[in-house]
Amino acid sequence: MADLITAWDKLGAHIRETALTGSIQSTLYWDQNTRLPRSGSAWRGEQLTLLAGQLHARQSSPAYAELVAEARQTWADGERCLEQGRNLDLLEQDLRRQQSLDPALVSALATAKAAGYSCWQQARQDSDFSLFAPALQTLIDLRQEQARQLAEPRSCWETLAQPFEPDLTLDRLMQLFAPLKERLPQLVAEVAAPPRSRSAAWELSEDAQQSLCEQLLTSWGRDPDSTCLARSPHPFSITLGPSDYRITTRVVSGQPLSCFLATAHEWGHSLYEQGLPNQSHQWFSWPVGQATSMAVHESQSLFWENRVARSFAFSEQWWERFVQAGAPLQAPRDLWRAMNPLSPGLNRVEADELSYGLHILIRTELEIALLEGGLAVSDLPNEWNRRYSELLGVTPENDAEGCLQDVHWSEGLFGYFPSYLLGHLISAQISEAMVEAIGAPEDHVARGDVGPLLAWLREHVHPLGRSVNAEQLVERVTGRRLDAGSFLTYLEGKLAALSAA
Amino acid sequence: MADLITAWDKLGAHIRETALTGSIQSTLYWDQNTRLPRSGSAWRGEQLTLLAGQLHARQSSPAYAELVAEARQTWADGERCLEQGRNLDLLEQDLRRQQSLDPALVSALATAKAAGYSCWQQARQDSDFSLFAPALQTLIDLRQEQARQLAEPRSCWETLAQPFEPDLTLDRLMQLFAPLKERLPQLVAEVAAPPRSRSAAWELSEDAQQSLCEQLLTSWGRDPDSTCLARSPHPFSITLGPSDYRITTRVVSGQPLSCFLATAHEWGHSLYEQGLPNQSHQWFSWPVGQATSMAVHESQSLFWENRVARSFAFSEQWWERFVQAGAPLQAPRDLWRAMNPLSPGLNRVEADELSYGLHILIRTELEIALLEGGLAVSDLPNEWNRRYSELLGVTPENDAEGCLQDVHWSEGLFGYFPSYLLGHLISAQISEAMVEAIGAPEDHVARGDVGPLLAWLREHVHPLGRSVNAEQLVERVTGRRLDAGSFLTYLEGKLAALSAA
Repeated sequence: MADLITAWDKLGAHIRETALTGSIQSTLYWDQNTRLPRSGSAWRGEQLTLLAGQLHARQSSPAYAELVAEARQTWADGERCLEQGRNLDLLEQDLRRQQSLDPALVSALATAKAAGYSCWQQARQDSDFSLFAPALQTLIDLRQEQARQLAEPRSCWETLAQPFEPDLTLDRLMQLFAPLKERLPQLVAEVAAPPRSRSAAWELSEDAQQSLCEQLLTSWGRDPDSTCLARSPHPFSITLGPSDYRITTRVVSGQPLSCFLATAHEWGHSLYEQGLPNQSHQWFSWPVGQATSMAVHESQSLFWENRVARSFAFSEQWWERFVQAGAPLQAPRDLWRAMNPLSPGLNRVEADELSYGLHILIRTELEIALLEGGLAVSDLPNEWNRRYSELLGVTPENDAEGCLQDVHWSEGLFGYFPSYLLGHLISAQISEAMVEAIGAPEDHVARGDVGPLLAWLREHVHPLGRSVNAEQLVERVTGRRLDAGSFLTYLEGKLAALSAA
Repeated sequence: MADLITAWDKLGAHIRETALTGSIQSTLYWDQNTRLPRSGSAWRGEQLTLLAGQLHARQSSPAYAELVAEARQTWADGERCLEQGRNLDLLEQDLRRQQSLDPALVSALATAKAAGYSCWQQARQDSDFSLFAPALQTLIDLRQEQARQLAEPRSCWETLAQPFEPDLTLDRLMQLFAPLKERLPQLVAEVAAPPRSRSAAWELSEDAQQSLCEQLLTSWGRDPDSTCLARSPHPFSITLGPSDYRITTRVVSGQPLSCFLATAHEWGHSLYEQGLPNQSHQWFSWPVGQATSMAVHESQSLFWENRVARSFAFSEQWWERFVQAGAPLQAPRDLWRAMNPLSPGLNRVEADELSYGLHILIRTELEIALLEGGLAVSDLPNEWNRRYSELLGVTPENDAEGCLQDVHWSEGLFGYFPSYLLGHLISAQISEAMVEAIGAPEDHVARGDVGPLLAWLREHVHPLGRSVNAEQLVERVTGRRLDAGSFLTYLEGKLAALSAA
């Protein structure tokens, strides 16, 4: 027993220091996105490269491998606790991956990510894809090399998608997305609204938007002692320590609800992180204490954004606060319709629930084509624009509105986009289970108390951490395998309600 | 020659990585003061402890010592370039100091500093010194141990003051401060203004204050691509990379000029950093590229705050902008008098130029007493309050107004406070030299162009870096040894002008 504690503790001390280093890296990333002046990006890139190298060394060193092996031996000789076994499975998998990578590649990737982000910012500001294209090509080359070095029995794109969606295959993804690819364009056509400007007829001051966001989070139980809000070009949620949860939002001119809905969305991410198991041996630094997939993460953010903030009941509760903030609303219905626009637009983050999936299908196909299908980087803007015209009936007027709008590829994140759409599917299926258990979310919102919703998620979803993968989580929570049915049913219901309103 | 390049380059690569790590530490510190939610402080403390340990290891390792020794040998065998020799002198001095320290002490200090900062925040909020006292005792114990381990031929306080004022002795400090200790209380008595409320009769909104600060920095040539502004409880300036300069300010209720003057002050610090030599081999990471002392640093911030922003010419240029921002001013004189209050107060940062020195004399005597004179931590609030009553004629009503007002001791910074007053002396003496060279700063301000002032400082003061120490710098720039004369002359002149106004 003494041996078991020793091996486990030694390993725990090591991965705790790894988690500290990782969270330092995250703090630099947070600062890069919220504060860093432009000229500081080169030095920041060197800092991140240094940390990436240190992290890789920690996670692939023979000494660390020995710690993992010792813990595995002690585990096998002992009571074979399932949770500890799962932690070891995941640590061993990650160790294999880290050991497969050449440190020079790790360092080159960190440098390319920082450079890519900096180029992307400039390219987006100037709306000129050619300023970003060389950096994107470098990132693609390095990611392909990464997949080769990992040498898993998976395609390049599948290999790169593993960190976001563990165990996902391209076949399974196509199976899940096929009904959407068929049905979503039909639904968009049924709505048959002429594409109109996404701008609302009214505006809210920045101060009013910020105040509404703060009211929202207060009403959702935010603890200011462990959370922090800021602004960034692209909203995100990040955890910098076991009691340090941060989100960002942004103010978009002409879209007075963008800041508010982004806050609801990112807060949903943060609530998932806040609900992960972080006590005892599964603490912060252990795999089982972490989020299991980006799709599950997204399902949680979408729940708070779409099921709660975009519900009619929410508009009934909140519309007077919006009126006080300066919005010219006559009735709850006005806010509800403004919260639920149904017109295909160019921007993924501002997209309505109906067309959102098409934004993702386009990105998914394009990044698979870039990595495995021989699509040339220089053809990306044209391919992007062509698909938007075909599937959504709108065409970007420039690169900033088009393929430069998202940050992901600038940081070399490929295989990430599908998680957003999978998140819609998971959110819909989990919501159905929630309705059966505690009634419709709208009914709780109508009573002005979202506490039971959070309590249910904190009991059934958040504490699973990485003890199960995304599909296992869905089966555990909903009793059946994931499919697109719940999401399409939900969408059709929402369309009907909006048409009747 | 090949050998020289090799030894120099190897050493350069090492200290560059040290500078990267140090700047990561600074970024965490920046975040801690501007964003970190309270519950995140324990984890932040662990991160800082980890980095402090890594930095200490890098700066004291046998491998590093060998690099320094090789570079010294190559230097001695070569042309003995003075600048490289100075770099080596300073690296060797720091190496000796780092090697003297037990890593356990370094780690304990980092932990105690993070804990001290956290306790101080809480104690100040609750205005309860007893919440901070145990952490302060720990910091004193650890600093005394540090001085013992360093084993320099200096007293404990002197040893701890070296990082801030290299080569300073207690005897020299007392010699410089003696005329102030005699003359300042007389001047305060001559003004004979009854202590009155420090609050202005008017207020400016937070937005208006922020806007004025932004206008100020724009008019002083701020480059937004390499600088960043934020808020923190205690204003500070920090450099996070060779092109990443940041300052903070704060809004103080009832003191509508506090935010503005703090911005002027911190910007002066930042201008010094921005003007340090950062090209070629003396770059960012080399000692000669760094600030030579905190007193010289302070002399630069005080120049912009007191000689420029508090000048009558400045009020003439700016008073209408303050009127537009909402200040009820009838004439430049109203702004000038508001910028130059002469009434002893409780707060160092808000103090007028006349009584400022007394705030420092009190802190200097108290920290020497805490470290070397046997003053018990529990007696600090009483001793603090007694001296304020005697020297300034005002008594703190609580600990927050009293000995909890400054952040320094909470981070274990002892030996730092005198730099502020030495900065006044240096600023006054350098300003006299500037007047002789290019005329009075006020005349340039009156013409609406501070460019020549900055250009003169950038030519004569900033690029010296650590090639000279503070006293050598003063002699180089002004042609005579530092003393309190220029400062007292300046003060007497200002008092006369204000009495006549």
